[in-house]
Amino acid sequence: MKQPLCGIVPPLVTPLRDNETLDVKSLERLINHLIDGGVHGLFILGTTGEEQSLSYSMRQQMIRETCRINAGRLPVLVCITDTSLVESIRLADVAAECGADALVSAPPYYFATGQPELAQFYEELVPQLPLPVFLYNMPSHVKVSFAPSTVARLAKMPQVVGLKDSSANAVYFQSVMYAVREMGRDDFSMLCGPEEITGECVLMGAQGGVNGGANMFPELYVAMYDAAVKGDIARMRHLQHYIMQISSSIYSIGQHGSSYLKGLKCACSLLGVIDDDFVASPFYKFNQPERDKVQKALDALPIKNGKLEI
Amino acid sequence: MKQPLCGIVPPLVTPLRDNETLDVKSLERLINHLIDGGVHGLFILGTTGEEQSLSYSMRQQMIRETCRINAGRLPVLVCITDTSLVESIRLADVAAECGADALVSAPPYYFATGQPELAQFYEELVPQLPLPVFLYNMPSHVKVSFAPSTVARLAKMPQVVGLKDSSANAVYFQSVMYAVREMGRDDFSMLCGPEEITGECVLMGAQGGVNGGANMFPELYVAMYDAAVKGDIARMRHLQHYIMQISSSIYSIGQHGSSYLKGLKCACSLLGVIDDDFVASPFYKFNQPERDKVQKALDALPIKNGKLEI
Amino acid sequence: MKQPLCGIVPPLVTPLRDNETLDVKSLERLINHLIDGGVHGLFILGTTGEEQSLSYSMRQQMIRETCRINAGRLPVLVCITDTSLVESIRLADVAAECGADALVSAPPYYFATGQPELAQFYEELVPQLPLPVFLYNMPSHVKVSFAPSTVARLAKMPQVVGLKDSSANAVYFQSVMYAVREMGRDDFSMLCGPEEITGECVLMGAQGGVNGGANMFPELYVAMYDAAVKGDIARMRHLQHYIMQISSSIYSIGQHGSSYLKGLKCACSLLGVIDDDFVASPFYKFNQPERDKVQKALDALPIKNGKLEI
Amino acid sequence: MKQPLCGIVPPLVTPLRDNETLDVKSLERLINHLIDGGVHGLFILGTTGEEQSLSYSMRQQMIRETCRINAGRLPVLVCITDTSLVESIRLADVAAECGADALVSAPPYYFATGQPELAQFYEELVPQLPLPVFLYNMPSHVKVSFAPSTVARLAKMPQVVGLKDSSANAVYFQSVMYAVREMGRDDFSMLCGPEEITGECVLMGAQGGVNGGANMFPELYVAMYDAAVKGDIARMRHLQHYIMQISSSIYSIGQHGSSYLKGLKCACSLLGVIDDDFVASPFYKFNQPERDKVQKALDALPIKNGKLEI
Repeated sequence: MKQPLCGIVPPLVTPLRDNETLDVKSLERLINHLIDGGVHGLFILGTTGEEQSLSYSMRQQMIRETCRINAGRLPVLVCITDTSLVESIRLADVAAECGADALVSAPPYYFATGQPELAQFYEELVPQLPLPVFLYNMPSHVKVSFAPSTVARLAKMPQVVGLKDSSANAVYFQSVMYAVREMGRDDFSMLCGPEEITGECVLMGAQGGVNGGANMFPELYVAMYDAAVKGDIARMRHLQHYIMQISSSIYSIGQHGSSYLKGLKCACSLLGVIDDDFVASPFYKFNQPERDKVQKALDALPIKNGKLEI
Repeated sequence: MKQPLCGIVPPLVTPLRDNETLDVKSLERLINHLIDGGVHGLFILGTTGEEQSLSYSMRQQMIRETCRINAGRLPVLVCITDTSLVESIRLADVAAECGADALVSAPPYYFATGQPELAQFYEELVPQLPLPVFLYNMPSHVKVSFAPSTVARLAKMPQVVGLKDSSANAVYFQSVMYAVREMGRDDFSMLCGPEEITGECVLMGAQGGVNGGANMFPELYVAMYDAAVKGDIARMRHLQHYIMQISSSIYSIGQHGSSYLKGLKCACSLLGVIDDDFVASPFYKFNQPERDKVQKALDALPIKNGKLEI
Repeated sequence: MKQPLCGIVPPLVTPLRDNETLDVKSLERLINHLIDGGVHGLFILGTTGEEQSLSYSMRQQMIRETCRINAGRLPVLVCITDTSLVESIRLADVAAECGADALVSAPPYYFATGQPELAQFYEELVPQLPLPVFLYNMPSHVKVSFAPSTVARLAKMPQVVGLKDSSANAVYFQSVMYAVREMGRDDFSMLCGPEEITGECVLMGAQGGVNGGANMFPELYVAMYDAAVKGDIARMRHLQHYIMQISSSIYSIGQHGSSYLKGLKCACSLLGVIDDDFVASPFYKFNQPERDKVQKALDALPIKNGKLEI
Repeated sequence: MKQPLCGIVPPLVTPLRDNETLDVKSLERLINHLIDGGVHGLFILGTTGEEQSLSYSMRQQMIRETCRINAGRLPVLVCITDTSLVESIRLADVAAECGADALVSAPPYYFATGQPELAQFYEELVPQLPLPVFLYNMPSHVKVSFAPSTVARLAKMPQVVGLKDSSANAVYFQSVMYAVREMGRDDFSMLCGPEEITGECVLMGAQGGVNGGANMFPELYVAMYDAAVKGDIARMRHLQHYIMQISSSIYSIGQHGSSYLKGLKCACSLLGVIDDDFVASPFYKFNQPERDKVQKALDALPIKNGKLEI
């Protein structure tokens, strides 16, 4: 994997038949769809990938199958977030054995840690891991944020090669980026989670985005990345309109925090990227009325042959 | 297990040598110490037991060893809280095979669920479990509370036999107790987590407490329970003083949320109830200065032959 | 005012005709209703009294009228919570001039302060106030809690004579009570906000309750206080049933945090204690469907001649 | 005032001698400093202006003096955020009388409102106001956010002419901007609070920034605005470095949420823009050790004759 990692690295949805059955055929279709769409890496078992809802054997299967299907075409990043250090390492070892390129880790998410405890935890974990590591900032789900000073402390370990930030807090993103740049870590990759702001982050110096919408329309987010790299602002604003249209329609059906995940999987299924949009417990896929709304949201987009005409 | 379950059911600390080694000898000493102290049940793998920090194989070992050592003397409750429904069921099956009496489950704690999703999750999970189930309310760690109306909805399943509330919100506790009583569920056990308020909760009609301090001084919390059952208020206030002294000294060293766990394990170790006070990642046991403070806090208590003179 | 202040000190609703008109006749009826019901003090301009929603001239009018109507029959406590120290002092001076007995102050609630800043603020404010002061813990509204150690620090000022805690966190309540008792402040009054737990708090040593429900049924909360003081547990449980019935019906209509206030004012109006149940902006009184539900909740209570038969 | 309002509209610090004395001479110097620095408007009594900590008479004085000193050179925006609708209107009337151009209002901040209550509140307030209104999103201080759908509902009133967002949540900012654009409100001004992200927001279509740092160095933030408008990305990145340097040094001294305010006022005082850096209660200005750190942070910047050489 070249460092810093640059571009659009979609967090893959995990195609499921039920809580215990991975839909490998859909996974194959999804991965090829992404690669055809021009993405720059594959990120599995993240929040969008429902890692925490999957059994450990399925997490391992997902790693194995992804690496097999990818067959070295793109860097594969595997999320190993866990509340147990031992299980984190176990998953990391599987990832290395299967040929993955890097690991991603959010803080343990049952107990909330103070910043010194958090730093100490990673200083213990990272050296036991067989691959480069991206930190994963996800305060809404894990209750704690990596303070910029904690990122700087952890970035002293060369094995820590980037941060994926899903906080949506753009001031935080700028602060971490500034702190890491001040250290001279030019190989450190700042990746933006929310697709709604990836364009502007890349323009200000970030390396790329981990955008869930790319499961549906990889070409859209890749185009935004390219426009931002080129500084083509008119093009960025044009693309941003579609990105916001998707965000405000497909991800905003229903009233719970799970709207994003349900909407995304449902749309992938309607687009034929995956078969079933089964969502693992504790969530449930949309019923028909919500499914109809997603279809309507898709119909409002200029899709031709499964691709956005942008 | 008689229903409703009544009395003091301590959440056992998990004696560890390191992240991967259970200290079975200390566990044996701890269990006998608790039974000698008069407690009414054993609750393992809860928050105090660091379930989420332990590997799955150690969780299983902890179940097996506890059931073996207990040898049917007391009801054994096993916490199966997990983000994955499949892993929860797997752990429940181990508990049943080993002869445990009941299960305890807090909501999935990575994704935050809305109340309808939460209810639906338990309506899917509970029928797949081989033993009676206590709901476990722990909003500070899992980000979501069982609304009183959700408890009432779930209490329609006879297999749901109680609620352990660790919220410290006494209005919430009263609200759930009222809702369940209104349903006529006299076999439903309301257990109070925080030892600082177990006395008053029992006095108002709760069945008992899941009090971490009982790992150190089981006789104190059993005495409080007995006094509350008898309505001996003078005795309650006398005992409450010691309970608050412990809470405000032993659990309040250090500045992070982990103070309770570190202080409790350290005190157990100093009292000889367990050997090492190793705390699993992402936490770390106290260093010597904090350990000295715990010792000083213990010295201020009227301990004779390892027991509180109360 | 005798110290410590003991008993039920209801937080008076503020009877309004509109945002700018105090309904003085209803206020007179309310105060007489409360005194007839046996309460031990009057607490005005608290959260239940909508202080923050009222203009300053109306706050002053409310102080003046309450002191005039009360005519020395009961201690009058005036809430002076404000974001501006200068305005707080101004209101306190009015209270003193009108003959009020004590002040109540929650932390400034726009900027959130750290604990040292909070302590320093009160060390500056209190000496400038003309009357004894109760601290008012209300974290859900003011975003910051008085840490037990901060209460202890402030309780070194003899002018600080009590704490009203509306957190519903009973562990917090016990911790503060323990901290203050350890200082030997036997004249310090611990008052419990939520009526659902006032009984148990008094039983464990608290001095009383600031219970909103007393606006409707002062006799119920006074009876609970008396039972708790006597240690009559059977009576407490009997009364607690009604208290919870009120809480779970009248205060639980609608889905926003304002349900308590709207339900309480609506019930007071239906019971004839006040005329209109106008709620000051940013809230609005219940519409007819919700009003019908409150009436139904009242009908389910054993009311005779406007009093609960308990 | 031209609509939409565009550019840098600094939130003025309020120069104080003590809690009750406005430093009018410093205010005059500050306003001239800002106008010389090229800013596009003046925003007074915001969070940076400590509105909530000031007495009402001082708020009125601040409005009067600002309008007098400004003498029509720039649009003046006056924040009227209050918990009392009546007091909000009163302040708005003063602003209109003094010749201010627009009002700014954050939600009432003692009671937290639900979205329908919030919308209803503004639908009641706005028609009673004598000037155009900017909504002010400040969830960390007022506990509630204007949902994008609520902004869209309120933007149906032509008198609502913009939104200032201080949430730092860039996804939120994009969502509101998209919702308002979809309505065809081209005269609606989207202003970004945090200076760390104003550049990227303007580039994506926002109208400007309400940047506190402009009190010190107006020319820096104006230059960033100009660069963003021109799409000069190299220049933006160059300027962003200084903006982040200021943010990570001057605003990050001390451990409480007040660091920003204390650091900013201290720096203004050291730069001679204002005399004293007195901070109104409940806060306190920096002591000498912190003041030295601010001086050091200033020394690290390329300042010449009180201006940044950029």
